[in-house]
Amino acid sequence: MKNIIAFGISLFLTTLTLMAQITNYERVNPLIGTNGMGHTFPGACYPFGMVQLSPDTDTVPFSVDGIYQKNVYDYCAGYQYRDKTIVGFSHTHLSGTGHSDLGDILVMPFTGERKLNPGTAENPDSGYRSRYNHSTEVARPGYYEAFLEDYNILAQLTVTQRCGIHKYTFPQDEAQHIILDLNHGIYNYDGKVLWANIRVENDTLITGYRITNGWSRENYIYFAMSFSKPVSNYGYVDKEKVVYNGFWKRFNLNENFPEIGGRKIVSWFDFENDGDKTLEIKVALSAVSTDGAIKNLKAETSGKDFDVLHKNTTEAWENALSVIEAHGDTDQLAMLYTSLYHTMINPSLYMDVDDCYRGIDHNIHKAEGFTNYSVFSVWDTFRAMHPLLNIIDRKRSKDIINSMLAHYEQSVHHALPVWSHAGNENWCMIGYHSVSVIADAITKGIDIDTEKALGAMISSSSIAYYDNTQSYIDLGYVPFEKSSNAASVTLEYSYDDWTVYKTALALGNIDATKSYKKRAVNYRKIFDSEIGFARPKYANGKWKENFNLLSTSDEGFIEGNSMNYSFFVPHDVLGMMALMGGEKTFIEKLDSLFTMHLPDEFFAETEDVTREGLIGNYVHGNEPSHHIAYLYMWTSQPWKTQYRIREIMNRMYRNNIDGLCGNDDCGQMSAWYVFSAMGFYPVCPGTDQYVFGTPYLPYMKIKLEDNKFLEIKALNVSDRNRYIKSIKFNGIKVEKAFITQEEIMTGGVLEFEMSSKPNKQTCYQGKNRPYSMSGELVF
Amino acid sequence: MKNIIAFGISLFLTTLTLMAQITNYERVNPLIGTNGMGHTFPGACYPFGMVQLSPDTDTVPFSVDGIYQKNVYDYCAGYQYRDKTIVGFSHTHLSGTGHSDLGDILVMPFTGERKLNPGTAENPDSGYRSRYNHSTEVARPGYYEAFLEDYNILAQLTVTQRCGIHKYTFPQDEAQHIILDLNHGIYNYDGKVLWANIRVENDTLITGYRITNGWSRENYIYFAMSFSKPVSNYGYVDKEKVVYNGFWKRFNLNENFPEIGGRKIVSWFDFENDGDKTLEIKVALSAVSTDGAIKNLKAETSGKDFDVLHKNTTEAWENALSVIEAHGDTDQLAMLYTSLYHTMINPSLYMDVDDCYRGIDHNIHKAEGFTNYSVFSVWDTFRAMHPLLNIIDRKRSKDIINSMLAHYEQSVHHALPVWSHAGNENWCMIGYHSVSVIADAITKGIDIDTEKALGAMISSSSIAYYDNTQSYIDLGYVPFEKSSNAASVTLEYSYDDWTVYKTALALGNIDATKSYKKRAVNYRKIFDSEIGFARPKYANGKWKENFNLLSTSDEGFIEGNSMNYSFFVPHDVLGMMALMGGEKTFIEKLDSLFTMHLPDEFFAETEDVTREGLIGNYVHGNEPSHHIAYLYMWTSQPWKTQYRIREIMNRMYRNNIDGLCGNDDCGQMSAWYVFSAMGFYPVCPGTDQYVFGTPYLPYMKIKLEDNKFLEIKALNVSDRNRYIKSIKFNGIKVEKAFITQEEIMTGGVLEFEMSSKPNKQTCYQGKNRPYSMSGELVF
Repeated sequence: MKNIIAFGISLFLTTLTLMAQITNYERVNPLIGTNGMGHTFPGACYPFGMVQLSPDTDTVPFSVDGIYQKNVYDYCAGYQYRDKTIVGFSHTHLSGTGHSDLGDILVMPFTGERKLNPGTAENPDSGYRSRYNHSTEVARPGYYEAFLEDYNILAQLTVTQRCGIHKYTFPQDEAQHIILDLNHGIYNYDGKVLWANIRVENDTLITGYRITNGWSRENYIYFAMSFSKPVSNYGYVDKEKVVYNGFWKRFNLNENFPEIGGRKIVSWFDFENDGDKTLEIKVALSAVSTDGAIKNLKAETSGKDFDVLHKNTTEAWENALSVIEAHGDTDQLAMLYTSLYHTMINPSLYMDVDDCYRGIDHNIHKAEGFTNYSVFSVWDTFRAMHPLLNIIDRKRSKDIINSMLAHYEQSVHHALPVWSHAGNENWCMIGYHSVSVIADAITKGIDIDTEKALGAMISSSSIAYYDNTQSYIDLGYVPFEKSSNAASVTLEYSYDDWTVYKTALALGNIDATKSYKKRAVNYRKIFDSEIGFARPKYANGKWKENFNLLSTSDEGFIEGNSMNYSFFVPHDVLGMMALMGGEKTFIEKLDSLFTMHLPDEFFAETEDVTREGLIGNYVHGNEPSHHIAYLYMWTSQPWKTQYRIREIMNRMYRNNIDGLCGNDDCGQMSAWYVFSAMGFYPVCPGTDQYVFGTPYLPYMKIKLEDNKFLEIKALNVSDRNRYIKSIKFNGIKVEKAFITQEEIMTGGVLEFEMSSKPNKQTCYQGKNRPYSMSGELVF
Repeated sequence: MKNIIAFGISLFLTTLTLMAQITNYERVNPLIGTNGMGHTFPGACYPFGMVQLSPDTDTVPFSVDGIYQKNVYDYCAGYQYRDKTIVGFSHTHLSGTGHSDLGDILVMPFTGERKLNPGTAENPDSGYRSRYNHSTEVARPGYYEAFLEDYNILAQLTVTQRCGIHKYTFPQDEAQHIILDLNHGIYNYDGKVLWANIRVENDTLITGYRITNGWSRENYIYFAMSFSKPVSNYGYVDKEKVVYNGFWKRFNLNENFPEIGGRKIVSWFDFENDGDKTLEIKVALSAVSTDGAIKNLKAETSGKDFDVLHKNTTEAWENALSVIEAHGDTDQLAMLYTSLYHTMINPSLYMDVDDCYRGIDHNIHKAEGFTNYSVFSVWDTFRAMHPLLNIIDRKRSKDIINSMLAHYEQSVHHALPVWSHAGNENWCMIGYHSVSVIADAITKGIDIDTEKALGAMISSSSIAYYDNTQSYIDLGYVPFEKSSNAASVTLEYSYDDWTVYKTALALGNIDATKSYKKRAVNYRKIFDSEIGFARPKYANGKWKENFNLLSTSDEGFIEGNSMNYSFFVPHDVLGMMALMGGEKTFIEKLDSLFTMHLPDEFFAETEDVTREGLIGNYVHGNEPSHHIAYLYMWTSQPWKTQYRIREIMNRMYRNNIDGLCGNDDCGQMSAWYVFSAMGFYPVCPGTDQYVFGTPYLPYMKIKLEDNKFLEIKALNVSDRNRYIKSIKFNGIKVEKAFITQEEIMTGGVLEFEMSSKPNKQTCYQGKNRPYSMSGELVF
């Protein structure tokens, strides 16, 4: 017996050793999701950094002559793997979003003839873009490399927190040039750039900025750009019709005049070929000023060349990715670490080295005692992304909450973020889910100013003019005549209000507790017990007629039809179950969701996802469904959760360019994966519970605070052995359907015994069942 | 004898007492120059303040469909007296310029139907503008009032340094409204406003800003606006075509949504009529941020109503205008004090109460130890406006020089201002005359960092790409093929270089002394001794052929033909005289300049002036001629200066709406008047000399530093007694043609004995003749 154990240990260590040869960093494949609907980018970024330096492969404007161009949607991250050319390398990208923006400050090296337009995919020679081949493409965390065939230039990119670092190796004996295109952008249109400016401070330093009216309504992006060798000549064109410009005409502004300004500025810089084939460019960003950008440039890059900075950034990623250690096959680990990587891009740093940042009020603020972040895709990320940080990166979670509270304090609406980035609120999607993010953080012991936080939560959920909040408060639901998303909004407000209720309760605010407790069950007002699903209702109390459960077009829902969306009552699953007709019907509805066929006409209405993103009528590519497979855990058939979770993981996440079935949505899709791989998921953020799904890998080890670890073991887990036979936590059998935050943070070993057969005996009841509000419903 | 003296004193005191009943403040007539070419505005401003709150009477865009609209030129200050309607009241205006801009943040009160466009002069009812009648118009320093007939609203305006204060008295029982038009502007065009923003902070406070691309290429203007009663409803239209705006469509942004943004924003605010017919509005400006504007608002207006603030501003003007005490008839004194008033508008304060301001590099700076000013129309104001400050407002002169040096330090060109305002250099007109401003300040003992100043002067005059400076350095003149203004530029560089030479000499910089001494006589290279005038020359040394001395069109000159411009050698009048053919010819040329007829075809080319602005071919409305009438003082016929100066003062300056013969040019035309009235003029700034002209008034008393005064007496002066018989300074006969800065600052009594006959005996020779460089010409 001893020998067997010894052999086992020896084998285990050998496996570990072999595994150690491939680092977590090397497992990451940033190309996952770069083709199709994933909307991820392959370029270089720093963990939660300000810069995302990445190739843009096309320049589709979002409107031409006022007409929306549908394929702009493909370029939310500026890149589609299928494209044959690289337009250039721009410094800001959203990761996985369903709406596009940014693509600021594009640099493109070239040789030979100067072309001051990007050209077209069909005729690359008509512009400065270059053909490239994926065989030359290298994408790693914090590093990107490609060979630009039209110019024979090797392009290498890395980053620091606030700087993009370019290294271009030109052919010997060729004159070296770059394009700096301040008119390029993602979500571009004729007029997106409100103003652009460049100052040639000296022959190795330029500064500049642009102000854009994109999705971020008013985005200020400043830069400081240093070159490893002197500029010999430079100039620009302004593609906007030149207006009467008084005495400017007296001298040539277009060449070697160090102050360039305009609306559609495309500039060029020549460098002497001094025998050194390489040109290194450091580009610091700032949302504050060019002074801020210069500070960032100096603080992060001074005296360090490309290789040193690349090494530092690699170490930063190795450190960030070391939070999880895991065993699995190559594709599984690629998917796991790439998912983890994708949760570490947004939210993004939005603050200079001197702690100054541009607030939502467009004033410059100094962050006192926190690090300011932007890019809050809260409708997506409240679900799993923020809860994940409350386990693996609690300091960052605190900074993010404080950033949200600063946003609230600066907001003229006195509102927490809805969907904000680059110092602007774009109000995308629905709900006021920052209240969930904050409630979850408080529940999980993140050290924030709870009184201020509750004030912000109450304020954000009380803004009369915000998306029919007043109607919702008055009627208990959003009437259908007021909003084509009325039912979705009501469901989400209802959950959000539950998070306010729980926070008020915890903080002893009796009035808010009472008020929001009532609001938390408002979802019931739009459940039609006759059909057993949520259904939009008019103010006069009448249901929408000719209601279609499968359609997402004008049926009161958004990014999900009623058959998916009706399940969005994460805080009161039992209440919802009752409204659906009781457990049996509930299970049948869940079953059929995964098994029915969604006719093409309704699939066509499903945004953001591929056909592969569906299992029956279940749409994993859109977030409202993310918790659905876990809902069997409230029923007598928890094994169905185990079956479906593994199915979703296998089918919806693949180590491939089109391996994401829908938008990664700033890491929410990926956070779902990381949680689900661990074997549990935060179905109802704001509770301290993570509901068990099924572990995906034989071994995971999560790094916690204070040198603690949570080991998750599932020795024989496989597609076949996907069912949980039993669970032990630190050697004690787990009878509950969930693990708590406290248990996780205590650390230890969570051990799953897996089986090829469903364990049909387990049925969680009473306190062992996951949280549901129903028990509290004495008003 | 004693009795006679006693009687004289008694009469004098009685006269003083009578005069004291009309204060200097009351003498000022801000309407002078508001019709035609003066380009002054009648509205409220503070001495050298940030705000110029004034009615705009039309909204001519400078271009329509890309075609320049010539009559936009009439609206440089937003106002023409001849107009019958007021569009509204905007907060920033240039005073007397020959190029238009600003007109920011327009407010217009109204009753009845809401109209969101300004309407037209022909059909006022088509928009929000109102008819008005000049009989209801009151214009005083720091105060303006008019009755808006279309609405029966009395509009009263006053200011603080950084705030515009509005008081509107509505008819009883009428609902009270205002328009806030952020699309309105002077030098407007379709696209001038790059972005505009409004936040309704609460029901009595709004903040906002706009960024414009006008003459100031990139002008950031922020505001904070408080109301004396709550806003009940508000909203806006954006006249720019609405672009695809994602999820913004979900709720109504156009009414009562407190965050308004767009390119062409016209907003409206309703107020409950609470029985109080008056609505007071305080509008603070800032070039930094809305935070800055709020600070300004609080610091300058907190707890003070319209009447209190009006009183404070009146006192500020009374104090500012007390620098000169004078006797004369009503029109003479109106003209004198209005001229003095017009020298106290630009340069304008450009700094918040916390000393922060927007630099020429578009970064925010804190002014350390000085007050920052903007609006530098240096080509105009180096002549007399800045020298005047060196006598009557030396602290301000120091601040202005320090503002110029800050500009230099922030300039990517390492250049002092050419024509800069609102944080931008617009490069209007020619030369690098800030070097003259600084040299004059140093000569006159203004306490600045002289080493830094000399560095700035050398740098500003060495910028190869600036308006053919390199050609000028290489050839000694700007060749005609390079510039249509080649001869003017050469003459002005030559003078400017003389100021650098003198400063370098004073500071002991031997290299610069040598180099700039040579450059100072470059004017000679373009003097054609065959014709005795300056003439443009090609790089190959050949003169322009078919040269026309009278034309200003493509003859190498700007704002002056060769017959005027050739006299612009203020630093070497004797050298110029020799090139013109000696004294006799020189006098003949001066004489004929004033007596010849300028044919209509050439008058048509003369910019910025009316026919009344000409005396013969002498064009007082353009600055290059301003010193010419004083040049007789270098000849044997100084009495001709006396004759011409009084003629110019009588004909070119009248107490009337069209009383200015040309643009007031930020106070230069007015400073010329103030100096000339005193009887002397700084013909060559950078010397310590003021060349005598002829006193205009019987008595003037100039307040100097340290409680000193300069009294100027010319007891019997009149149009008839315009000639100087003799001069005494503090009782001692003056033999020189000039008075020095030191003498002036010592104070005392400068007494002119006047006569109806020219004193043909006086001829200033040697040291008594005004400065001319000729004597120093040993290289």
